[in-house]
Amino acid sequence: MAEVQVPVFDTLLVVGPGLIGSSVLRRARARGTLARRLIAADSSAAVCARVRELDLADEVTTDLAAAAAQADCVMLCVPVGAMGEVAAQVIPAMKSGAVLTDVGSTKVSVIEAIAPLLRADVPYVPTHPMAGTEFSGPDAGLEHLFEDRWCLLTPLESTTEAALESIRTLWERCGARLREMTPPHHDRVCAIVSHLPHLLAFTICGTADDLAAETRSEVLDLAASGFRDFTRIAASDPVMWRDIFLFNREALLEMLGRFMEDAQAMARAIRWGDEAYIVDRIERGRAIRKSLIENRQA
Amino acid sequence: MAEVQVPVFDTLLVVGPGLIGSSVLRRARARGTLARRLIAADSSAAVCARVRELDLADEVTTDLAAAAAQADCVMLCVPVGAMGEVAAQVIPAMKSGAVLTDVGSTKVSVIEAIAPLLRADVPYVPTHPMAGTEFSGPDAGLEHLFEDRWCLLTPLESTTEAALESIRTLWERCGARLREMTPPHHDRVCAIVSHLPHLLAFTICGTADDLAAETRSEVLDLAASGFRDFTRIAASDPVMWRDIFLFNREALLEMLGRFMEDAQAMARAIRWGDEAYIVDRIERGRAIRKSLIENRQA
Repeated sequence: MAEVQVPVFDTLLVVGPGLIGSSVLRRARARGTLARRLIAADSSAAVCARVRELDLADEVTTDLAAAAAQADCVMLCVPVGAMGEVAAQVIPAMKSGAVLTDVGSTKVSVIEAIAPLLRADVPYVPTHPMAGTEFSGPDAGLEHLFEDRWCLLTPLESTTEAALESIRTLWERCGARLREMTPPHHDRVCAIVSHLPHLLAFTICGTADDLAAETRSEVLDLAASGFRDFTRIAASDPVMWRDIFLFNREALLEMLGRFMEDAQAMARAIRWGDEAYIVDRIERGRAIRKSLIENRQA
Repeated sequence: MAEVQVPVFDTLLVVGPGLIGSSVLRRARARGTLARRLIAADSSAAVCARVRELDLADEVTTDLAAAAAQADCVMLCVPVGAMGEVAAQVIPAMKSGAVLTDVGSTKVSVIEAIAPLLRADVPYVPTHPMAGTEFSGPDAGLEHLFEDRWCLLTPLESTTEAALESIRTLWERCGARLREMTPPHHDRVCAIVSHLPHLLAFTICGTADDLAAETRSEVLDLAASGFRDFTRIAASDPVMWRDIFLFNREALLEMLGRFMEDAQAMARAIRWGDEAYIVDRIERGRAIRKSLIENRQA
């Protein structure tokens, strides 16, 4: 006899129903076990109109405070640079005991922006579901986006056990694998596995674009597999990535610094023909690749 | 009534039946229009044994000179660092009028290695089929590897029209799209579209691997899509890439220099919060991505 799952929350408000937010709404709609009632809020009337057309929520509104007043959980899915401003609108309106959570790709800066606005009766659970595609907006969401993907949780000292547990259950029901870590550790790990690769991809596309007109045309025509993979990464949303770079500045600049040292060392090895160094570096890439395949992530 | 295609060559010798060489052999076997008779030669007895097991050629031998003496076309498919040494073995044995060609990923250095060994009665056509996978060796070849991929030709002043035309026809029958350019231009274009992306992918894997043990384990566990694409590139053959880096040193170091300047500029923009610069760089990546899709290369 299958166990009947009680919804985690009565009313769930998703603020910013873009790629991530609308994926949560789609999952919630499809399963019925995340919340009994769904509200989507966005400051853009055009986004709200589209979310209504897609029928992703029971209520869709541009009035963030009015929506927050009804919710048992408020999930902030806006770009990390907008988190503080949006939190300032919703937190004062929230019901006592309702849970605040966010899905920002950087954690230290988002927590710094939100912490001064927190109320003692509103527990806050910072999260980062590591999922995405190169598309954005409410049309881009997918019910299965989070399946088998990591969702990182960076609870604070003030985060209550009950709130953490409810957010854990919500993401488990989205199909995600969970891991907890501190906010600074999160930012360093994500700087190397996600933010730096995107920075390099954007940069090499710009470098290619700066070449003379004749060469540029051939760069496009002749794009080998290497460049194709870079441009796949580089197709992501500009404002989201601008914010991630700026709001994870410290960790990202540290990882970029390490990378630049390593790239300079590789350049030196190539210039002086240090074959052992070059092969060692290449083989490390293969070893990581092998581990990824064993971890079913590739 | 279908036109019967006469094979381009009577006897084709592939020296180095790895990923590229064995793909040519598979195509030749499947179509029958590249050559009437196929010979594979490799200095490794183990590789020869495997090629025999796979039945990729009519004759398989470790005796390069004896094989070359029978061939109407000798195609060198060895790593670019081995081209000169292999050419020195085969050229003196070749029949007068037979065509020499190579498939090396760098052209200036390969031509420099081969040119002093050339005979007036042996026309030479340098080529570079831009195709590959992350696998290597005779088992990795694919009959359709070259379909819709570019094959670049960098003919010399001494290359005869007849030899160029026969090599063009051979690659057209492999399904490739052809383009001619000078060897130095080839090396610069490939440095930016292929060699530099691979160098960056190898380097970021090394950078990640250098992080502390705890963080490294999470790099593997948490690899986001960005890092996955890098490691896919980084899984290629170490010796082949070592040679490409060393033998396209000048163009690669120039492109890496440009890239490092751009990465430093991006780092500076992030440090000082120059949003317009960051967004401009991100949007160039998207524009190139769009062009690639329109060119059916992505």
